[in-house]
Amino acid sequence: MTDTTRDMLGRSGLIPVDEARQVLLDCLGSHIPDQETVPLDQALDRVLAAPIFAPEDLPAHARSTMDGFAVRAADTFGASESMPGYLQIAGEISMGEAPDGRVTEGTCHRIPTGGLLPDGADAVVMLEHTVPVDDTMVEIVKGVGPGVNILGRGEDIAHGQLALPAGQLLRPQDLGLLAGLGIDAVTVTRTVSVGIISTGDEIVPFTETPAPGKIRDINKIALGGQVRRVGAAVVDYGIVSDRWEVFMPVLRQAVADNDLVLFSGGSSVGMRDLGEQAIAELHPPGILVHGVALKPGKPVIIGLSGMKPVFGLPGHPVSAMVCFDLFVRPAIDRLAGRVTDQLPEATIIARLDRNINSAAGRRDIVRVRLIREDHSWAAEPVLGKSGAISSLARAHGYFIIPESSQGISQDTLITVHLYS
Amino acid sequence: MTDTTRDMLGRSGLIPVDEARQVLLDCLGSHIPDQETVPLDQALDRVLAAPIFAPEDLPAHARSTMDGFAVRAADTFGASESMPGYLQIAGEISMGEAPDGRVTEGTCHRIPTGGLLPDGADAVVMLEHTVPVDDTMVEIVKGVGPGVNILGRGEDIAHGQLALPAGQLLRPQDLGLLAGLGIDAVTVTRTVSVGIISTGDEIVPFTETPAPGKIRDINKIALGGQVRRVGAAVVDYGIVSDRWEVFMPVLRQAVADNDLVLFSGGSSVGMRDLGEQAIAELHPPGILVHGVALKPGKPVIIGLSGMKPVFGLPGHPVSAMVCFDLFVRPAIDRLAGRVTDQLPEATIIARLDRNINSAAGRRDIVRVRLIREDHSWAAEPVLGKSGAISSLARAHGYFIIPESSQGISQDTLITVHLYS
Repeated sequence: MTDTTRDMLGRSGLIPVDEARQVLLDCLGSHIPDQETVPLDQALDRVLAAPIFAPEDLPAHARSTMDGFAVRAADTFGASESMPGYLQIAGEISMGEAPDGRVTEGTCHRIPTGGLLPDGADAVVMLEHTVPVDDTMVEIVKGVGPGVNILGRGEDIAHGQLALPAGQLLRPQDLGLLAGLGIDAVTVTRTVSVGIISTGDEIVPFTETPAPGKIRDINKIALGGQVRRVGAAVVDYGIVSDRWEVFMPVLRQAVADNDLVLFSGGSSVGMRDLGEQAIAELHPPGILVHGVALKPGKPVIIGLSGMKPVFGLPGHPVSAMVCFDLFVRPAIDRLAGRVTDQLPEATIIARLDRNINSAAGRRDIVRVRLIREDHSWAAEPVLGKSGAISSLARAHGYFIIPESSQGISQDTLITVHLYS
Repeated sequence: MTDTTRDMLGRSGLIPVDEARQVLLDCLGSHIPDQETVPLDQALDRVLAAPIFAPEDLPAHARSTMDGFAVRAADTFGASESMPGYLQIAGEISMGEAPDGRVTEGTCHRIPTGGLLPDGADAVVMLEHTVPVDDTMVEIVKGVGPGVNILGRGEDIAHGQLALPAGQLLRPQDLGLLAGLGIDAVTVTRTVSVGIISTGDEIVPFTETPAPGKIRDINKIALGGQVRRVGAAVVDYGIVSDRWEVFMPVLRQAVADNDLVLFSGGSSVGMRDLGEQAIAELHPPGILVHGVALKPGKPVIIGLSGMKPVFGLPGHPVSAMVCFDLFVRPAIDRLAGRVTDQLPEATIIARLDRNINSAAGRRDIVRVRLIREDHSWAAEPVLGKSGAISSLARAHGYFIIPESSQGISQDTLITVHLYS
């Protein structure tokens, strides 16, 4: 076993979280995701494979943003309540129709919000700043400058401008922009496929009543939920014996079928040895990381078969889910071609309501419940062993005790990452 | 028109955002969502209709959380490197099997992580704190207290304890807890159905090239994306003329078919009048709010037909999407029975990079791009008219200028709500 308990650099100790993640992401740096084209109305939360440049001006013609009168701004300069200007009403713009005629000196056209600006006009005086004289004349009580109360041609986005960068997760407003530009299909990266294997002779499906010594499979559904929430697809390889001759063929098949594979099972030495041996038997580079200075989650194994990450997650459900957030999720984002470097993570500042100890050199992930305190939040650590899934279900989020710290004192303001 | 431009309380002015939302939510207070039962593996992101109490102890039997030896803690008291204790190895626990025999005074059983604790034992000494003597004897170099390195029966969650409260959105870890308890189906609230109508004779589908004066439908796909992201379903009623005899039957049908209806169209006076008249023609109470002291989003109309909210959203896409976040989303959550009162919203603290003015008495929603600055973030307002959808596509999030403020100075630390 000695060989497989060393990583590709020959190290056998625990490595820091950031280093473990970086080793993996660096290996995936040259990965180019497959692409597919989907209709725009099916593109929500997909990742753009290439940048999109505006194929035309939006709007294609200047439009009014107010109900009022389309004018030549110069005709209104200086108009005020005490010194109004007068314009002849020479036309009326109908919604959805091309304007008929142009605005000439001393004239104006009635225009509704969204109406297309007639030629000759360069601004709109809103209705509230006018007083009707008769059907043919209007009094202007507040002058406007050029461009006021209109959305100019290409003012939203101009032909050739970058609309959306490659790697962008498509949000509702992004779909709106593309719809406005008449882009009805987009090239996105293929959905990342994740194979999940539960291992261990003691695991039974959660639909069964376990005999003494057996336990229900918690990790499959919990990890599957995490996978779905990051936009990837789950392929379930069932519950597989931890005997080599049974486990290894299933692992090979899962790696062949998917972009990334998770197996989770016991955290026993025997199970870890099996996991490490199995990853080492796949295509190179094999094992990248085994064991991280992290609590919970220390026994995680991170490997790579070609460009396919393979994770041996701890059997304890809390440990497995923490490792998902720290290592699997960034790998899925990378495989999906999602650019996340410039995105901040939203958090909550809260007051820690008791002292929490940690060990120097290790990163601790402490689950907390948030409790409202006037205009702020108190964070109450949810203490529970990493085998206790209820500690995660009771938690609103977690905070991090960094490697450099031996603990956090009561009343310290901490940064809480929410479980949404 | 005068009657329909007053709300149910007879007021005709703009009302504050919080009041507008509260009027609506108060009206929905007595709404009881329909329920349905779904298999656990289809319950991700659904809302629990009733609390769930643990139907049994989890775990059902005490289990080891370490590889090591199951012991009577009392037999190890005081054991240390310099003064080790010695225990006879009387058995071995196999993974997934019920223990054979019990741990008696002076004896121990080998046990793997996850192994079921044999009778008589009340703790586990981890392998690292033992030294093998021979096949029948082990040296204990660190004593343990009762309960150490085991997950006791019911320690994760005990029979009868609250597992999850009603109104909880089911997260991955919640599914894990329920799986652990053998709960393979859950009663959730029915998915909220949202009808969306685009109105206006100037609107064409985004798949078409608009003639002069026409524009592509941006709001349908953008609002549809917002609806899907809060877990509701979209029913599309197409693009409907803003003539009364065409619009009103479609609105009635959409209200009959769905739990909530959005229509969005021009922000012209004519369109607003049509929207208000139409809502007033539905079942009481009718119009709750028309016009909010909000920028962008002022012309929003909020109505209620029985227990079905009906929103007349502004035609400008940015205004429509802002109104969705402020008014529609809370209504959908309420209809879905989701309890959100005790949940904080995660945000980012950022430095505002320029002065921004506002008007007292109005709430401003200012879109921003976030730019990394060493260890913090700068927020750069994305200035753009509310008709310019690109201003939302360029934004990472927004901050709020409250009614009490006339603006925010450069370098003020602001709270940014992210568009995820």
